[in-house]
Amino acid sequence: MQRSIGGTGTLACAFTILIGGGCASTQHDPLPSWNDGPSKSAITGFVQRVTTEDTPDFVPPAERIAVFDNDGTLWSEQPAYFQLLFAIDRVKALAPQHPDWHTTEPFRAALEGDLHAVAESGEEGLLELVMATHAGMTTDQFREIVRAWITTSRHPTTGRPYTEMVFQPMLELLDYLRANRFKTYIVSGGGIELMRVFAEDVYGVPPEQVIGSSLKTEFEVRSTGPVIKRLPEINFIDDKASKPVAINQHIGRRPIAAFGNSDGDFQMLEWATTGGGARFGLIVHHDDAEREYAYDRSSPIGKLDRGLDEGPTRGWTIVSMKRDWNTVYPAAENRSR
Amino acid sequence: MQRSIGGTGTLACAFTILIGGGCASTQHDPLPSWNDGPSKSAITGFVQRVTTEDTPDFVPPAERIAVFDNDGTLWSEQPAYFQLLFAIDRVKALAPQHPDWHTTEPFRAALEGDLHAVAESGEEGLLELVMATHAGMTTDQFREIVRAWITTSRHPTTGRPYTEMVFQPMLELLDYLRANRFKTYIVSGGGIELMRVFAEDVYGVPPEQVIGSSLKTEFEVRSTGPVIKRLPEINFIDDKASKPVAINQHIGRRPIAAFGNSDGDFQMLEWATTGGGARFGLIVHHDDAEREYAYDRSSPIGKLDRGLDEGPTRGWTIVSMKRDWNTVYPAAENRSR
Repeated sequence: MQRSIGGTGTLACAFTILIGGGCASTQHDPLPSWNDGPSKSAITGFVQRVTTEDTPDFVPPAERIAVFDNDGTLWSEQPAYFQLLFAIDRVKALAPQHPDWHTTEPFRAALEGDLHAVAESGEEGLLELVMATHAGMTTDQFREIVRAWITTSRHPTTGRPYTEMVFQPMLELLDYLRANRFKTYIVSGGGIELMRVFAEDVYGVPPEQVIGSSLKTEFEVRSTGPVIKRLPEINFIDDKASKPVAINQHIGRRPIAAFGNSDGDFQMLEWATTGGGARFGLIVHHDDAEREYAYDRSSPIGKLDRGLDEGPTRGWTIVSMKRDWNTVYPAAENRSR
Repeated sequence: MQRSIGGTGTLACAFTILIGGGCASTQHDPLPSWNDGPSKSAITGFVQRVTTEDTPDFVPPAERIAVFDNDGTLWSEQPAYFQLLFAIDRVKALAPQHPDWHTTEPFRAALEGDLHAVAESGEEGLLELVMATHAGMTTDQFREIVRAWITTSRHPTTGRPYTEMVFQPMLELLDYLRANRFKTYIVSGGGIELMRVFAEDVYGVPPEQVIGSSLKTEFEVRSTGPVIKRLPEINFIDDKASKPVAINQHIGRRPIAAFGNSDGDFQMLEWATTGGGARFGLIVHHDDAEREYAYDRSSPIGKLDRGLDEGPTRGWTIVSMKRDWNTVYPAAENRSR
C-alpha cells in the first residue's frame, strides 16, 4: 500500500517538476510507520533545517553524524539484553566440555535458563559468563559463532529471529537520515564484534560505523597465518559517560543527532545536543506493553528516569512507542531485507 | 604540464567514446609523480584486478579498505617525528609557566632544541614531554593548539610548513585509490587527535578514518557545557602488533592493501596481505639523501630491517624513493590544496 502511494507521489512529483513547480508536498512519506504528530514533525523539521543550503542551520554532509544506541533503541531488550541470551545459549552449547558448570553459579542458572538467578549473580557473575563465552577464540571464529546463533536462534517470548525484533520505524529513520546524507553510527553498550555481524544487513550500518563495548585482543602469528585473539579481559565498556569518549575516539567529530532509550544514553545525547547550531536528541519511551514492552524508571534493563525528567526541558523528543508508531516490528514478509 | 597532458588525454578519450571505442590507453596518468616501472605497475595492476567485475579477484567497494601509515609513509619523519617537534615547540611556549624546566631533563634539552639529549632521555623522558604538552586540556582546546602550530611552524631543515612535507606520489596514490572506490585510512603511531586536525585537508582522509595512538579521555560536564578532557595517561600505542588490533577495533574489516615504511608497519602489512584473494603491501624505502633522507636498517627513527629482508619474498612492493618517484614534495603553488 505504501509503495503504490509512493509511486503515485513520485509520478505527480515528476509532472510538477516538468511544469516548473516544486513537489515537496506530493512526495511519498519516508517515515510511513510513524504516526503524524509532534515526534515525526520534530524529526523531519530538523532534517529539513540542516539540509537546506544558504540557511544558518545548514550542516555540510561530512558533519551530518547521527549516533544510535542499539538495545532498546533499534531492537528490543526484554526480557534481557539479547547478548545475554546469546551468552546463555553459548553456555548451553559449551556445557558438555564443562561438567562443573552444572553446580557452579552463574553457569548453573544459565544452564537452567533462570534469568532471575543469572541477574542475581551481579556484575561479577555476568562478567564470568561473558568471559567464558566471548573470549578464548579468534575474531573470525567469534563472528562465525555469532552468525550461526543469530540465524538459528529465536526470541524466548515472541519466537521471532532476533533480527526481526528490530523496530521498523527506526529502520525507516536510519534510511531517511542516510537519504539526507547523514552518516549513521551505532554507539552501544553491546559488544562491538557481536553487533558488526548483523548491523550491515539489518540496519545498513557497516562494521566501521559500529561502536560498542569490547574485550582486549591480541595479534598472533600462527603456522596457518596471523589471527586476532579475543582475551578474557575487558577493554572498554561503552555506556553512560563513556559513550561520548568512544564517539570522540572512533569518529573524532561531535554528532549533531543522537538517538537512545535509556539513561545509559543520557551523556551521548547531552554531548550531541549541546554543540552549536541545530541539534537533535530523541528518546524512545517503551510504553507499549501490548505490542512490545512497557518499562522505564524502575527497570533494571534500559532504566529511563533522568531522561524522562530532563529530556523535554533539553528539547529532546520523547517518542511514545504506543502513540507515535503505527508499526513496531517489520512484517515477516520483509525477512529477506 | 601534467595537467595539460591529462586534458589532452581526456579529450582524446571522449572522442574515442563518441566513435564507439574504448579509451583506457588514452586516459590520463593518475600517478604522474611515479616513474614507470615495477612499483607503479604493481599498484595499477592490483587496482585493476580488484575492480574488474566478474573476475575471481574482484572485491566489492565496501571491502576495498586501504590502510596507510603516516610518519615516513605520507610525510617525512626526519630529523625527528614531527609530533616530537610539536612537543618541543609546546615546551618552549609553556616554559614561562614552568621555571623549573630550565634545569630539569628532558625539558632542558627540549628548550635548547637538543634533539640528541631529548632522545637520550629514553621512553620515560619522551612520555614526560608528551604528558606535559598533550594532556591537561579539552579535546577542542588541543585541536586549536595543533591547528595554530601546524599553520605557523616550519620544518627545521627545509623551512617548509609540515603539511608541505607530504609526499606528492602518495597524495596521488590516495586519490587514485579513492577514485577506484577504496576507503583510505591512516593507521599511525602518531597521535590520533593531532593527525585529525590536518588529515582531511592534506590527505583527504576524514577524522573518522584516522587511527592512531591516544591518551585516555574523560567526559566532564562544566557550567559552560560538556567537554572531553585529555588525561595524562596513555590509552593506546598504535605501533607494530597493535596496528592490526587497532584496525580490527576501528574498522572491523581486514584491509586488502597496506602501505608503510618501517618495521613498525610490518604486522599491519602482514595482516592485510595474508587474507584471501588479491592483496597488496607496499613499503616506502627512504633511499634519497638528496631530495629527502636516506635511512633504513640502523635508523632509530623509521627503522626498516625485517621489512627489507622479508618484504620481497612476501610479494610486497619495495618503493625506492630515488628511482620510483620523479617528485617528492608537492610544488609550493599547490599550497592551498
